[in-house]
Amino acid sequence: MQTKKNIAIIGSGLVGSLLAIYLKKRGHDVTVFDRRRDVRTVEFSGRSINLAMSNRGWEALRKVGVEDEIREIALPLDKRAMHVNEKPLYFQKYGKEGEAIYSISRGILNRKMIDLAENAGVVFKFEEKVWDIDLGEAKIFTGESERSEWKSYKYDLVFGADGAFSRVRHKMQRQSRFNYSQHFIDVGYKELTIPANADGSHKLDNASFHIWPRGEFMLIAMPNLDGSFTCTLFMPFEGEVSFETIGTEAAAESFFSEYFPDIKDDISNLTNDFFKNPTSAMVTMKCFPWTYQNTVALVGDSAHAIVPFYGQGMNAGFEDISVLDSLIEKYGDDWERIFKEYQNSRKPNADAIAELSYRNLVEMSSKTANPKFLLQKKIEKKFSEKHPDKWLPLYSRVTFSDRPYAEALAIGDEQRTIMEKIMKIDDIEEIWDGEEVENKILKALNKSELSFK
Amino acid sequence: MQTKKNIAIIGSGLVGSLLAIYLKKRGHDVTVFDRRRDVRTVEFSGRSINLAMSNRGWEALRKVGVEDEIREIALPLDKRAMHVNEKPLYFQKYGKEGEAIYSISRGILNRKMIDLAENAGVVFKFEEKVWDIDLGEAKIFTGESERSEWKSYKYDLVFGADGAFSRVRHKMQRQSRFNYSQHFIDVGYKELTIPANADGSHKLDNASFHIWPRGEFMLIAMPNLDGSFTCTLFMPFEGEVSFETIGTEAAAESFFSEYFPDIKDDISNLTNDFFKNPTSAMVTMKCFPWTYQNTVALVGDSAHAIVPFYGQGMNAGFEDISVLDSLIEKYGDDWERIFKEYQNSRKPNADAIAELSYRNLVEMSSKTANPKFLLQKKIEKKFSEKHPDKWLPLYSRVTFSDRPYAEALAIGDEQRTIMEKIMKIDDIEEIWDGEEVENKILKALNKSELSFK
Repeated sequence: MQTKKNIAIIGSGLVGSLLAIYLKKRGHDVTVFDRRRDVRTVEFSGRSINLAMSNRGWEALRKVGVEDEIREIALPLDKRAMHVNEKPLYFQKYGKEGEAIYSISRGILNRKMIDLAENAGVVFKFEEKVWDIDLGEAKIFTGESERSEWKSYKYDLVFGADGAFSRVRHKMQRQSRFNYSQHFIDVGYKELTIPANADGSHKLDNASFHIWPRGEFMLIAMPNLDGSFTCTLFMPFEGEVSFETIGTEAAAESFFSEYFPDIKDDISNLTNDFFKNPTSAMVTMKCFPWTYQNTVALVGDSAHAIVPFYGQGMNAGFEDISVLDSLIEKYGDDWERIFKEYQNSRKPNADAIAELSYRNLVEMSSKTANPKFLLQKKIEKKFSEKHPDKWLPLYSRVTFSDRPYAEALAIGDEQRTIMEKIMKIDDIEEIWDGEEVENKILKALNKSELSFK
Repeated sequence: MQTKKNIAIIGSGLVGSLLAIYLKKRGHDVTVFDRRRDVRTVEFSGRSINLAMSNRGWEALRKVGVEDEIREIALPLDKRAMHVNEKPLYFQKYGKEGEAIYSISRGILNRKMIDLAENAGVVFKFEEKVWDIDLGEAKIFTGESERSEWKSYKYDLVFGADGAFSRVRHKMQRQSRFNYSQHFIDVGYKELTIPANADGSHKLDNASFHIWPRGEFMLIAMPNLDGSFTCTLFMPFEGEVSFETIGTEAAAESFFSEYFPDIKDDISNLTNDFFKNPTSAMVTMKCFPWTYQNTVALVGDSAHAIVPFYGQGMNAGFEDISVLDSLIEKYGDDWERIFKEYQNSRKPNADAIAELSYRNLVEMSSKTANPKFLLQKKIEKKFSEKHPDKWLPLYSRVTFSDRPYAEALAIGDEQRTIMEKIMKIDDIEEIWDGEEVENKILKALNKSELSFK
């Protein structure tokens, strides 16, 4: 058992709330600060992509005993539904039988997590803005504005769970030898909605992650419990087809008629929402170190914000907390060691999932509509089913396993090299499921230095 | 002629002072703010690497008519002097006859530049700290501290010339879609001094840039006008031989005896200075955009801080100012266009010199002591002398030409690929100056798509 500490967590988002539950259950006094109003008392903002909970996320919830409550607000999606214009709807299984990602509304999940934390005895201070932090002293300073009177609080430990634009990290960033980068992609996103049918049922298959891949841009839709779908349009900010060029309701109308004729009439309030909802930016944020001595640590997006195209942002943040808790178990009161091992073990994995997420934008928006790419996936799937000990597809390793992200990236790259050669076989379309292809893959794997298990 | 503007420049360093002279000569009202004391009234800090002025720097000084005054405080260095243990001193010419880099003390140059700006009519406000800036309004806020009472000033244009840790950029960084990175290298540096002989003469050749390459670390020395040399020790912060492991005067003593026996006794106050002078960090800082509408622009290190291993930090900053001035000449009062073209033309070049500077650490500390590398340089030099229209060595293109840095990087990479093949020729040590090698290079150049002119 650890010595009881007085701990502040900055940020009441998903990762902050989960960490609060973990630390409270280990016997600490935990206070969570958030600059915003209690999310349980506000309307949702119209700027959230639905979340996809997968293995790492569930694992972290399970360990702290709250998995079942979250399962109740999640919908399993076991496949992609591909909406390619002038082609029939095409389904692509995510994994093996029984494997699925789970669609959850960010707002609903966040409210639930705060409830769970509060029930466990965590204290929440909403609408209290942290502006500065004394890293060595674990002291935080709050106030109405950056220039107003401030109040100070002294803790034993402070965790920054305050997201991509973290104030805690902002302070750490002023140290010499602190590495930091923020890189915005040129693609923005906008939330739209497909409401439920009159009888409360879903308008599209509710066990699928729907994608309308259109090359430079794409639309996705994920189901909600109430029969609606949360849609997200991803599109460049500037350029030929872009948010910039869709400036009028008529332009929005004709854009959807041209590119999304099958779904246009199902999206509610289309042209209205298009201009009412904000166009949001997406950022990859990296930094190091993540911790300061034995007093301060960053978790989740504040340490490693990623773009959403692998559906792993929350899962990676939740895994931070699992790992942190295992190290707490191992090292007890030696917080400096806990923090050091935490950042050293998580950093390469955070970098790897950042890279994989960035790459997946191209895969989702272009490649998923490409017959050659679909054939490649079929070959991989067949081989993997026959030789499960030799080939775990990249998506499955990331989504359905607990193997490190860094390993997934490395093995995925090796697999890609092998598949590039396979796809160059002249008559691959004809012989894809034959022995020759299978043997070629086996031979390539034998030569490889990485273990594919 | 442009309409007269009221312009603030934040930062009275080299680039800020030069920009002030340019803008004043174009008829604007120019005020320079600096948070520090007037550098003309303070002792130097013991943390500066001497500067190496080369073609781009001189060009920028010439265009604004102050070249001659700066020549007087500079010492030409036309070669590297390589101090490899147990080998005779070896000299390596930088370029063609008459080409040299110029050693200048940062402090002396900065004082001179401020004098020149003041004489031209620029107003300086020292010890006035800028904490915030209203980007759209070109308003700056100054005060004793971040939390004290602030004074505000309204300008037409504001330039951030406030270095790698720029406050102006700090404000721009809070915008969405602002890309930013700071990456510290694991190597630090420390200033040391070789004083003049009793008669005021230099203890080492004063027309050479002296290097003691030792693999993971190195010492350099550049001459000053007063007969002294400014030395800089570059060494990892941590590791087997590192600043961390040299913790006592005895350790410092034995470190210099082991690795720098030829110069140890010439360094004054060695063990004293080693602990008195700070160990400084080096950072590569990148960002984009560099400008805000028609009101704010970053110049020099605030837009693109680089590591010092190509001696191009100041030269790149000065070139920013030349380019900006050419665009002012071209577009007159259209400051938005001036700023847009300035950032678009300079950004790829800033990224290229950042990359080249980073790579040059390895070249300087390890490769310069490697016989194969020296042979390669000899082959390149011979070929370049015979075919000056076909091969300008990378170092010369960066240092002695005004071709864009991005071009230097691209062509340099192509040249490296060619030379890697040449160096693999079995008996290259014997036939290096023969026709076969020459023809091989010619053939490779013919196949290349890049113009090597």
